[in-house]
Amino acid sequence: MAVRLEIIARSTTNEARLGRLHTPHGVVETPAFMPVATAGSVKGVWPEQVRQVGSQMILGNAYHLMLRPGAERVAEFGGLHRFMRWDGPILTDSGGYQAFSMSNLLKIDDDGFTFRSIVDGRRIRLDPVSCMRVQNQLGADVAMPLDDCPPAGADRPRVELALERTRRWLAACVESHARREDQALFGIVQGGTHPELRARSLAEVVAFDLPGYAIGGVAVGEGTAEIHRTVAETAPQLPADRPRYLMGVGYERDIVAAVAAGVDLFDCVLPTRSGRNARVFTRAGALNLRNAIHARDSRPIEEGCDCPGCAGGFSRAYLRHLFAAGEMLGPTIASVHNLRHYQRLLLDIRQAIKQDAWSCLETAWPVLAAASEGSADRPADPSSD
Amino acid sequence: MAVRLEIIARSTTNEARLGRLHTPHGVVETPAFMPVATAGSVKGVWPEQVRQVGSQMILGNAYHLMLRPGAERVAEFGGLHRFMRWDGPILTDSGGYQAFSMSNLLKIDDDGFTFRSIVDGRRIRLDPVSCMRVQNQLGADVAMPLDDCPPAGADRPRVELALERTRRWLAACVESHARREDQALFGIVQGGTHPELRARSLAEVVAFDLPGYAIGGVAVGEGTAEIHRTVAETAPQLPADRPRYLMGVGYERDIVAAVAAGVDLFDCVLPTRSGRNARVFTRAGALNLRNAIHARDSRPIEEGCDCPGCAGGFSRAYLRHLFAAGEMLGPTIASVHNLRHYQRLLLDIRQAIKQDAWSCLETAWPVLAAASEGSADRPADPSSD
Repeated sequence: MAVRLEIIARSTTNEARLGRLHTPHGVVETPAFMPVATAGSVKGVWPEQVRQVGSQMILGNAYHLMLRPGAERVAEFGGLHRFMRWDGPILTDSGGYQAFSMSNLLKIDDDGFTFRSIVDGRRIRLDPVSCMRVQNQLGADVAMPLDDCPPAGADRPRVELALERTRRWLAACVESHARREDQALFGIVQGGTHPELRARSLAEVVAFDLPGYAIGGVAVGEGTAEIHRTVAETAPQLPADRPRYLMGVGYERDIVAAVAAGVDLFDCVLPTRSGRNARVFTRAGALNLRNAIHARDSRPIEEGCDCPGCAGGFSRAYLRHLFAAGEMLGPTIASVHNLRHYQRLLLDIRQAIKQDAWSCLETAWPVLAAASEGSADRPADPSSD
Repeated sequence: MAVRLEIIARSTTNEARLGRLHTPHGVVETPAFMPVATAGSVKGVWPEQVRQVGSQMILGNAYHLMLRPGAERVAEFGGLHRFMRWDGPILTDSGGYQAFSMSNLLKIDDDGFTFRSIVDGRRIRLDPVSCMRVQNQLGADVAMPLDDCPPAGADRPRVELALERTRRWLAACVESHARREDQALFGIVQGGTHPELRARSLAEVVAFDLPGYAIGGVAVGEGTAEIHRTVAETAPQLPADRPRYLMGVGYERDIVAAVAAGVDLFDCVLPTRSGRNARVFTRAGALNLRNAIHARDSRPIEEGCDCPGCAGGFSRAYLRHLFAAGEMLGPTIASVHNLRHYQRLLLDIRQAIKQDAWSCLETAWPVLAAASEGSADRPADPSSD
């Protein structure tokens, strides 16, 4: 198998595991958070800085890259790693979620999606075969199968249809996957918020004996409590020796809850998308740097933070000025800080598992005990930035 | 005097001099190019990167900073160096050029400018006293006096009026300058393209015995030949032991011609403004990264360039993709490359003076021999980005 999870330690108080994910492009310490490089760049951040803040693996969006510059073009350059100058592991999603959610969907049928390109209006067909061709060309360490991910409000017959499609599409993806030696294809469990549909999907997907499994269809509009319940019910049922990836989630408390349920891999646009919008994270909660309260504040975003922004001495007042003046450096510094925030959380999570001291996390991260954020606050598309 | 020029070597073939400008924030090797940090940031570039590409001194715009966040606010933070986290030398311009050129000028009279703030529409008065107050608060190593800089097409009576105002305003600026110990006030020579008015202005300004002199009113709409002639006639007449600064100029050939005329300091928005617009400089000339010709080009912007973009292996094809996709990293990488391009030119210029081998410059920089660029191509406001 192209990737392999080595488990190093387990929490005695919950399902959390500490591991090392071995990939063709190196090892990733898990639980791990993958910054999102939608179109071949983590927005506003140099690859070197992405690594400096502690990222070991990133996510690319097949949807965006297939439309521009095109997967064949990326393949000509030796694949996504070489094209974007990231030599660590990469995971690409299938493009299905964006085809569905980016509102130019023309048709979804039993064999795939038809949509108009957001770049040039071309009519595009995305089915299991083309989805795998694109991802084989991009050459990420982990590829994801095409799946049908209905929104949170979908009724039960729609979710059951999604399950059936997801299973058949997965079979077709496995069949047409051309790079099994150096590219792992994960399975995706769907089933919305219905426990018995989740269980059915899980059994069907696990039957394929894949190198890793993802929980999809989470944080697509439902509330925080539902997210946590679904993950807590699903993750522990996945094979213990394979990596578990929770797609597009989320806030700090969502990640901590999912790790406690046994999840190993995460991605989310929140650090970069929030950063571009002047929203910065601290252990005590988020701040909006546009607020007037910061205009005379000489403190860094967070005291003691070792990110290049805080350690570099940029004050909240200066950052507020950059956002007010529309200076690119504001979004850049805020994004780098937020990425470091997430990677520090994951560092502390790994430390808590290693020392089997899970309860210490909430002391160091007051934001975990803060009031729940509503689903309205979640990014509409949490996996493409 | 707050700054002092130490001359180390002179060319035997022209007026070029190699020097060290001693300032309260360290030494600058001259001839030197100052990147423009209009609103307290070199657009899209971390201060650390500004230094990494070889910049030793930068320029800030009093006009933009007085409007937002306000010079008092910057002073509360210990001045512009500390506010923007640049610990090297800084020069601030007076704000007069922007007050005049940014098209919301309400009135120019014999005592100063009245204009509307581009930030909030407030009516603002800029006169010698407020200009010096603002720059004293910003605390740059070099401050510039308020001057009257008419556009290239101005008739002779208008230029003569500008000379008279520039002289009187300089006297008022010298009078109200409150930080002579740690902030040098330069004089500005005006006079448009009229040799005898330039000579008159020069005599009047030099009579103030200031720590440095600037040539203003160049590259304000006239052609390349006029720019070179004016500089060649003016620079050598300035006191040999004081730094000479050519404001807002320009292309590589303009800089080389001005150094040959004895100029020591330069600033221009070209590296960053062009970079944001996908225009990148090479020794052989500029490229537009948006052009389709780059779509399959695996070469860096310039072979052998040691900037973080070229040395980092980012291909022209990847950069074109970033610009096409509207990714912030494109403008950032292009700006950093262009800044390095300018600093490498200045490095080579200093080397050519040191080795007294001026003629070698054109061999290493074919762009210097290329056809002249028209004035239409010059930035409308070359000193605020």
